[in-house]
Amino acid sequence: MKSLNAFVVVFLLITAGWAADPLPSWNDTAPKKAIIAFVEKVTKEGSPDFVPVPERIATFDNDGTLWAEQPMYFQFLFVLDRVKALAPEHPEWKEKEPFASVLKNDMKGVAAAGEKGALILLAATHFGMTTDEFSKIVTDWITTAKHPKTGRLYTEMVYQPMLELLAYLRANGFKTFIVSGGGIDFIRPWAERVYGIPPEQVVGSSGKLKFEMRDGKPVLVKLPEVDLIDDKEGKPVGIQTHIGRRPIAAFGNSDGDLQMLQWTIAGPGARFALIVHHTDAEREWAYDRQSHVGRLDKAWDEAGARGWTVVDMKEDWKRVFPPEH
Amino acid sequence: MKSLNAFVVVFLLITAGWAADPLPSWNDTAPKKAIIAFVEKVTKEGSPDFVPVPERIATFDNDGTLWAEQPMYFQFLFVLDRVKALAPEHPEWKEKEPFASVLKNDMKGVAAAGEKGALILLAATHFGMTTDEFSKIVTDWITTAKHPKTGRLYTEMVYQPMLELLAYLRANGFKTFIVSGGGIDFIRPWAERVYGIPPEQVVGSSGKLKFEMRDGKPVLVKLPEVDLIDDKEGKPVGIQTHIGRRPIAAFGNSDGDLQMLQWTIAGPGARFALIVHHTDAEREWAYDRQSHVGRLDKAWDEAGARGWTVVDMKEDWKRVFPPEH
Repeated sequence: MKSLNAFVVVFLLITAGWAADPLPSWNDTAPKKAIIAFVEKVTKEGSPDFVPVPERIATFDNDGTLWAEQPMYFQFLFVLDRVKALAPEHPEWKEKEPFASVLKNDMKGVAAAGEKGALILLAATHFGMTTDEFSKIVTDWITTAKHPKTGRLYTEMVYQPMLELLAYLRANGFKTFIVSGGGIDFIRPWAERVYGIPPEQVVGSSGKLKFEMRDGKPVLVKLPEVDLIDDKEGKPVGIQTHIGRRPIAAFGNSDGDLQMLQWTIAGPGARFALIVHHTDAEREWAYDRQSHVGRLDKAWDEAGARGWTVVDMKEDWKRVFPPEH
Repeated sequence: MKSLNAFVVVFLLITAGWAADPLPSWNDTAPKKAIIAFVEKVTKEGSPDFVPVPERIATFDNDGTLWAEQPMYFQFLFVLDRVKALAPEHPEWKEKEPFASVLKNDMKGVAAAGEKGALILLAATHFGMTTDEFSKIVTDWITTAKHPKTGRLYTEMVYQPMLELLAYLRANGFKTFIVSGGGIDFIRPWAERVYGIPPEQVVGSSGKLKFEMRDGKPVLVKLPEVDLIDDKEGKPVGIQTHIGRRPIAAFGNSDGDLQMLQWTIAGPGARFALIVHHTDAEREWAYDRQSHVGRLDKAWDEAGARGWTVVDMKEDWKRVFPPEH
């Protein structure tokens, strides 16, 4: 009986310890304390800051907030891979920019084609097929393609501390949403498996769709027309259109998230805004005001002026990526 | 001990009886049996038709499926009331069609203005304000305005059998969505209270939004530009954009729902499509192929050809509306 009691005590200590540290990959610095203090006050019945479960909406940027975004947005690396995969069907691309630069791995040439070039590559790889076909293309790529620097699957370059944060919020009655400048159709096929976020809780940039009957079967065709650019001013628009109520907590890392954070904070009652600052050149990357990808400039100033929580990745995170397996 | 056993037996009988009739306002006719058979097979672990919880998506049309739509769509009655409320600020409306007809309660004049007239009325009452302002206008109206024929609140003209169906599906792990041709901003303010459907699970027709700072506060302004007409071919588009996966069950009542039903049924595995046929001129209204509101013609033919479930409101529903209180 004594040994059973001892077992029970150890078990209780372990579970209590686990319950007491829902964010084991976070150091016990200010951001972790601020997150826990916020969650505790909005979930405490009778507290003046209590928020009913249905209103516990939390929105997360994806690139640079939930997974890495260097040396360039992973969706753009997908575009480059798709151009190479489709090249045999398009012999003319060998002579035609920006395709020719992509096929020669000439990233300077791709960059020289600018935004217009990027849109041409996007159109050639993201439109014309059905939504089901595109979903399969993304799934095939995301389960096999490797990051050029780390050699890991892209889905292994998600941030372990943020996975814990998502789980912690959900355990406290929050509904977690992605609100990304990336393509909604690019994120949905794997967000449930990787983040535990179902497709209906993914908001992203989107193109127009067209319903058609093909051989008696209904399909939705992806048209080369923008529906929503879910970035900057577009993020509150995407939130309102898809979610229809204001988040009480929002998480981002760049100027593209500024308006989402402003929109979140401007509501009544307790609110939480957090910015991930990439400061860890060793374990990840270090960049902010001068970066072409994930520039953090205006939003950083606003975070300082308004007292938003800023994560210093190097100081505040015990680990960055999940363990290799 | 004997009386305790008796008590337990009675208790079990009562709870079993309750569990056995999750749809008390439905007669024990074919539609009820089909609904229950479908739910039982997709929720039975190990069954070849088993569907995991996250994929149990059910979509419901609103007008004529969850609440009444006669003598005209309730949102159009809202428009008429809004024109009257705003008339003092617009003295010119007394002389200007289609406003003049509305102010004289001349429904023939309003009808004569046709679709163009309806769009003018919609623009005058639905755009230019912020999303928060519009939400308050809708909430004020829906909690006070009365139906011209029944004198009841519009939210009391929801179908009791459908409320039970929504609850039954949710109790079986389904996520229930509205997919309406009506305005998303018109339905969201009350759908959670009336149907138990949160704003993020309401899909509807929508206009473009614009993010602005006003006096240092962020707002979203409703612009007079269509974003999505969530009707007919637009319903599968709205489903894909907002939900991102195909429903396994869909419920409608008119040709506006045909493509949603086709899209739902075309997926793999067990599927369910149901049409509410308005056959009860006494308790509600009777209309189908010739109706201007909620016309049921092509979808009825397809239901017959494909063996979809058709509810004969008069025969299959014990009661139509919730009890008055």
